[in-house]
Amino acid sequence: MAVAARESSRRLQALSSQDRKKILMGVADALEANENLIKIENEADVAAAQLAGLDKSLISRLALKPGKIESLANSIRVLANMEDPIGHVLKRTELADGLVLEKTSSPLGVLLIVFESRPDALVQIASLAIRSGNGLLLKGGKEAKRSNAILHKVITTAIPDTVGGRLIGLVTSRDEIPDLLKLDDVIDLVIPRGSNKLVSQIKSSTKIPVLGHADGICHVYVDKSANMEMAKRVVLDAKIDYPAACNAMETLLVHQDLGQTSGLNELIVALRTEGVTLFGGPRACKVLNLPEAHSFHHEYNSMACTVEIVDDVYAAINHIHQHGSAHTDCIIAEDQDVAEVFLCQVDSAAVFHNASTRFCDGARFGLGAEVGISTSRIHARGPVGVEGLLTTRWILRGCGQVVNGDKGVIYTHKDVSL
Amino acid sequence: MAVAARESSRRLQALSSQDRKKILMGVADALEANENLIKIENEADVAAAQLAGLDKSLISRLALKPGKIESLANSIRVLANMEDPIGHVLKRTELADGLVLEKTSSPLGVLLIVFESRPDALVQIASLAIRSGNGLLLKGGKEAKRSNAILHKVITTAIPDTVGGRLIGLVTSRDEIPDLLKLDDVIDLVIPRGSNKLVSQIKSSTKIPVLGHADGICHVYVDKSANMEMAKRVVLDAKIDYPAACNAMETLLVHQDLGQTSGLNELIVALRTEGVTLFGGPRACKVLNLPEAHSFHHEYNSMACTVEIVDDVYAAINHIHQHGSAHTDCIIAEDQDVAEVFLCQVDSAAVFHNASTRFCDGARFGLGAEVGISTSRIHARGPVGVEGLLTTRWILRGCGQVVNGDKGVIYTHKDVSL
Repeated sequence: MAVAARESSRRLQALSSQDRKKILMGVADALEANENLIKIENEADVAAAQLAGLDKSLISRLALKPGKIESLANSIRVLANMEDPIGHVLKRTELADGLVLEKTSSPLGVLLIVFESRPDALVQIASLAIRSGNGLLLKGGKEAKRSNAILHKVITTAIPDTVGGRLIGLVTSRDEIPDLLKLDDVIDLVIPRGSNKLVSQIKSSTKIPVLGHADGICHVYVDKSANMEMAKRVVLDAKIDYPAACNAMETLLVHQDLGQTSGLNELIVALRTEGVTLFGGPRACKVLNLPEAHSFHHEYNSMACTVEIVDDVYAAINHIHQHGSAHTDCIIAEDQDVAEVFLCQVDSAAVFHNASTRFCDGARFGLGAEVGISTSRIHARGPVGVEGLLTTRWILRGCGQVVNGDKGVIYTHKDVSL
Repeated sequence: MAVAARESSRRLQALSSQDRKKILMGVADALEANENLIKIENEADVAAAQLAGLDKSLISRLALKPGKIESLANSIRVLANMEDPIGHVLKRTELADGLVLEKTSSPLGVLLIVFESRPDALVQIASLAIRSGNGLLLKGGKEAKRSNAILHKVITTAIPDTVGGRLIGLVTSRDEIPDLLKLDDVIDLVIPRGSNKLVSQIKSSTKIPVLGHADGICHVYVDKSANMEMAKRVVLDAKIDYPAACNAMETLLVHQDLGQTSGLNELIVALRTEGVTLFGGPRACKVLNLPEAHSFHHEYNSMACTVEIVDDVYAAINHIHQHGSAHTDCIIAEDQDVAEVFLCQVDSAAVFHNASTRFCDGARFGLGAEVGISTSRIHARGPVGVEGLLTTRWILRGCGQVVNGDKGVIYTHKDVSL
């Protein structure tokens, strides 16, 4: 299945940009044309989930709401009309007279996507894969089995025979996952979309690179130079805008000079007023009289957070390096020098000054469709758009040049403008 | 050791560009000041290797030739004077009024380099690591033990206490390698420098990303439209310029229409005249009367190659996808359309038209110091310069903006010129 996906992806890549666009338009039309069929299968999944007494929030993610198919089809059309991400010349160098090197973007190859519940994720991911010329293996949640099967069928039927029907493979049994995770010679990237547990499990059981993040322990550090009104606004947003998100604040670090001030007091009161439960590190427990936090490396994913008092910005940075997950960390400060120390030294995927951690997101960053947020340091880091599904190739065009012990040509190494 | 290297690398990264430059200048001076000491230790290694009856070519790689220390010191000074690779703004976007996002280059973190024989590799790699703000663990060959120890000592002594002496760790026992390869949470990248066997062994025994290539089965395809004089020149260079190199040609594919022509005959004669032993695939065996090649997936690394006849450019591409190693592949053709099909469809790190495969090299590509050639599709592909030792961070500067269910700001997503 993986080998067939790679072969199909090579055929897809060989098509013109216009032809790949046409395929996406065809997929969008096919989804709309088969809306009723898709609805029937989705309703069957939802009914089965209700019968099985599954979690309400899971059922809500499972159900395709009215208008969803239309909005999915439209977002595929937007993607189809976007600039083709593959075949871009990223850099051009004249190596010698008549010998020109180009670094170009090209598809990564074969992706394995493991996702939970949401059947709309299948559509989004499949269309991104087609846009970027990649083959795809999909494994969805078993509760969305019938929805995934019909969506897969509708999409692959819309892919012309020249590319082959096996560009996108649907893995239906959970037992196949461990075998797939062993195929590090045929699968280039695994993208898990789901719980932290799912991501951790996959990361620990494969040598294939994994694009994702197992945890998001994001910090906001409030410096003594902070505008405390701003600190209150940003901290509240970072915690309560969407507490279950990976980019929500889990730990609030406060400069020691703020320990007994009315500004910090108001911030604490505001958090409590919004219903946030506070836990403290050793110093915060004493000064602010908080119950003790379990561990500094803890993701609440809910209306709760840890508070700790630190000596200064350097202590805050050390705390973040020691206990964080290198996802998103923020400083609130009016002192520009202190802010720059933080921005320069915090070794996380995203580092913010005077802005909510919640901005760490592909759509808010303007990346278009988001493939995921990566805390890995290799390949792609932070919110990843379609460029995370690409690699590069070096293309060299000459007229018979040879190396001949480096006496064959006179190297010029001139950058050529694009 | 790995944890200490990461801490030191964070301190190194926090220094100004000027201070990192000073460190490199200090390392260069220290090498020259200690030249005699280094020579004594190196001569002891060479004497021991001779006594042990080690291979002549190995001993030649082991010995630091006269003037080598000076030339190493000078190349460190060149590196010191190069533009700082870290802290570059790669992209700048205004997300909303007063909210500006930057994608910046930053050090990867901690590198593990495993290299064989050449003690000069230690110096080159250590200086590249310092330049790019990375921590480093080094494991050299045991035959260069004394040379590596003194070089490591001279270099680390030149690193100021503010960074810490443990930025560069020297691993002396082979037994420690398997343990190091398990540290995928502390080591970000492994770079093996040595034989294919070494690379394969490391790739198969770690989850840490490996930058390197286990094999280089490079093809030259001679199309029926080829200028046969050019084909002869390029094919000879690709095979004989340095047969042991990974970018040397291992398989020559020939369009079937050339099968009985004088052009092909001359090419075959020229290869034989230079002392190249030819083996054939099934079709070439018949047409050209060659002894049968063992396998199409075979790297000779010597004055030998496989020849096969293929139907056309598409068959050549299929052959390369099926039997190649996605390193460097080349087409010789005058027909531009055929050449573009090859350049567009061959899914290798480097794809050439009318130029020797031997050009696939960091220095020839103008990348400066070469970290390695990668056939992995993730992170870096083909010849990799210092940018292979870097990752990115997203830096966001605001003035108190919040997300507030995406009603907090009006997104502008404007590219800001750099």
